[in-house]
Amino acid sequence: MKISLKHYLNKIFLLSNWTNFRPSQILTFAAMKAEILTIGDEILIGQTIDTNSAWIAEQLYLIGIGTNRIVSISDTKKAILEAIDDSFSRADLIVMTGGLGPTQDDITKETLTEYFQTELITNQEVLEGITEFFSSRGKEMLEGNTLQADLPKDAVILMNTRGTAMGMWFEKQGKVLISMPGVPYEMQGIMREYGLEKLKTHFNPPVIIHRTVLTQGIGESFLAEQISDWETSLRNEGLSLAYLPSPGIVKLRISGFGARGNEGVIKDRIDYYIEELERRLSPIIFGRDKETLAGVVGMLLQKHGKTLSTAESCTGGYLAHLITSVAGASNYFLGSAVVYSNTSKVEILGVESKTITANGPVSEAVVKQMAEGARRRFGSTYALATTGVAGPESPYPEVAPGTIWLAIAGPNGTRASMHQFGKSRSRNITVSALTVLNWLRNEILTAELE
Amino acid sequence: MKISLKHYLNKIFLLSNWTNFRPSQILTFAAMKAEILTIGDEILIGQTIDTNSAWIAEQLYLIGIGTNRIVSISDTKKAILEAIDDSFSRADLIVMTGGLGPTQDDITKETLTEYFQTELITNQEVLEGITEFFSSRGKEMLEGNTLQADLPKDAVILMNTRGTAMGMWFEKQGKVLISMPGVPYEMQGIMREYGLEKLKTHFNPPVIIHRTVLTQGIGESFLAEQISDWETSLRNEGLSLAYLPSPGIVKLRISGFGARGNEGVIKDRIDYYIEELERRLSPIIFGRDKETLAGVVGMLLQKHGKTLSTAESCTGGYLAHLITSVAGASNYFLGSAVVYSNTSKVEILGVESKTITANGPVSEAVVKQMAEGARRRFGSTYALATTGVAGPESPYPEVAPGTIWLAIAGPNGTRASMHQFGKSRSRNITVSALTVLNWLRNEILTAELE
Repeated sequence: MKISLKHYLNKIFLLSNWTNFRPSQILTFAAMKAEILTIGDEILIGQTIDTNSAWIAEQLYLIGIGTNRIVSISDTKKAILEAIDDSFSRADLIVMTGGLGPTQDDITKETLTEYFQTELITNQEVLEGITEFFSSRGKEMLEGNTLQADLPKDAVILMNTRGTAMGMWFEKQGKVLISMPGVPYEMQGIMREYGLEKLKTHFNPPVIIHRTVLTQGIGESFLAEQISDWETSLRNEGLSLAYLPSPGIVKLRISGFGARGNEGVIKDRIDYYIEELERRLSPIIFGRDKETLAGVVGMLLQKHGKTLSTAESCTGGYLAHLITSVAGASNYFLGSAVVYSNTSKVEILGVESKTITANGPVSEAVVKQMAEGARRRFGSTYALATTGVAGPESPYPEVAPGTIWLAIAGPNGTRASMHQFGKSRSRNITVSALTVLNWLRNEILTAELE
Repeated sequence: MKISLKHYLNKIFLLSNWTNFRPSQILTFAAMKAEILTIGDEILIGQTIDTNSAWIAEQLYLIGIGTNRIVSISDTKKAILEAIDDSFSRADLIVMTGGLGPTQDDITKETLTEYFQTELITNQEVLEGITEFFSSRGKEMLEGNTLQADLPKDAVILMNTRGTAMGMWFEKQGKVLISMPGVPYEMQGIMREYGLEKLKTHFNPPVIIHRTVLTQGIGESFLAEQISDWETSLRNEGLSLAYLPSPGIVKLRISGFGARGNEGVIKDRIDYYIEELERRLSPIIFGRDKETLAGVVGMLLQKHGKTLSTAESCTGGYLAHLITSVAGASNYFLGSAVVYSNTSKVEILGVESKTITANGPVSEAVVKQMAEGARRRFGSTYALATTGVAGPESPYPEVAPGTIWLAIAGPNGTRASMHQFGKSRSRNITVSALTVLNWLRNEILTAELE
């Protein structure tokens, strides 16, 4: 790290005595406290995993509101009233989902109307919206749907344009309760369009800014070792860091926070550290925030007018699937030969029979001929190839499960590398595909420099 | 439905006045109540989705224990003690996960030791296990790890063979608290090996038996319409039904319950209804319980000594990926040609250029030639083909996004069918692959009858 960094940052942002922050300390910093309530028997019998609460907790965290508790309860008046009283005894904000369906089982709206001592009145605008919702879909509107336009008089209605159960914002002595339907995309729509902005205005929480750096190719603990000095420096400057691992990928989320108005300064501070990391680890850093590796590779191919094909044995089509999950992939992806049998390796890709006999199908010679065969057959600029034993068992006594050969063929020739990933079939498939995609990314970037 | 069914069932199981059960009523039936506590700041900032609670709730439900509440709290003594008191005021059982790591941040074990008025003593068997755990992995054992063998004297230790944080079973006036580490596969191992059996012995909950029927090809609401008389009859006999939809698949879970000792009778009753459903809807029912469509198709191919290949345009390799996700797929799957460009359709599969020019690539003539080309090139018994516009945009003004042609080529010739799935790219890819796989399943079953 450069010696001048601390001076530079001290000058622009005097928080450098906040060291080694943990998430709980950030929650402490966010003085305003929320609790999240989920209503529904499906969650209590394990039929549905409660993904809404994690989404809401993250969104609140991103605007500087900490979450005390997440509670899932049954769809009964007693449980709802108890949970609200309990949460308001600790928190300033309750965010609720579920229990707002059109059937008689759903009693959340009635219970909240009673709790906040108000009454239900028909909201004409909402009634028109619901009527339009059904007529535009050619569906019959039932009485239960009409009743969804009856809403608590003292609540601010947070419009739901994706369904018929509206969001409701209640206030009581400065405290706030938001009730929303449990369908994830309806709830997310209401929060994105109304809820989050209204929360910022009402509670004026501190600013928290997050950026994510995406890495491929190094495991979490080895990565942590490699960047420990950078991490210490970053924490000494009042920023926090989270490692978010998944098979083949480790995401690094950097968070910075401070009083409102300091957004620009915090962003600069985070960018400084990200750029430093990118200088040190460019081969493994493939993107930021919501990018995907297949998307980044696709953009690079398109930018340079290059095309791609793949030849897959052990990945069995997953590599092509990753590439074609990106809308517009047909602009640069020509196709894949999934060659699961030795005969198809010979027939479709022109791998030599004698090479397979001499080396076995999991070998450097075969993976190179596969890549070259795909490049020739599809006429693409680059071709990627995979062959190995995905597992959990190996059909070849001399090849352990998890042994994978990867190859890349391109204008600068063909190269291959061997990897040993482990025994999990699904993990081997995923990690092989990501590894060879990141290899291609580096190959294209290197070619750019030539 | 046959008129004699009700008589038959009444004779063997006198519960037929239990009608129209909802999950909450089953929870009511299970008089024994549990609450689930999850400890961890990662969940409260939305960094981790709490999947442990859903898993535990389902396992408890499967052995007849209902869950009142699921609560996620912060890793502080105050929050833990408050939550335990609160849950024990309503429930007989608390199942806790998280907060048992080797670092000083984790204070759950100490807090529980204090709550249950006991003391920590070193458990020699556990200490040896932890020492062995580290030496067998060639890792250094730190002081924090040694301390994990210090365990509450009055707790029954539920051995964790997958990690170093043990499960603990506390009792107080007949009520039970189980504390386990938050790593899902460690927690699941402890519950499967010790926890669930011990709970059954301690609480002797009623029996609940579940069977799942797996369907492909009909949406949830249309399916519900088709089987409404069957569903009514099933509910009238005291069984309950849940629809569990995901893209392309609807699972039907049938649950039956009663006093211990009646397992056989309940199983017969459920089987009766499943067999009735299979008779009515065999083309859409592909399996039961934990089976997968690709696994079922693989078993059928293997049983008959048949082989398969695929030719994929819009599914982009996902169909081959589904097939090769099954261990041992190389016994019957020969490969896939992912032909994303028109040239590759011609070059790799031998589709005629003039057919593409005359009909466009999304057409009956092209999808049939693709299937026939794959069958010829790979030399397989059957070949499946997909071509369409996955979306969200369409490159062809005359073809709407979501328009998909599917084909199957086999010993009895080649057939194609057109489908219109919608605008979501990932959904179109998934549903296309599942639809053509289920078509193949029916094709093989029909061939069996000939």
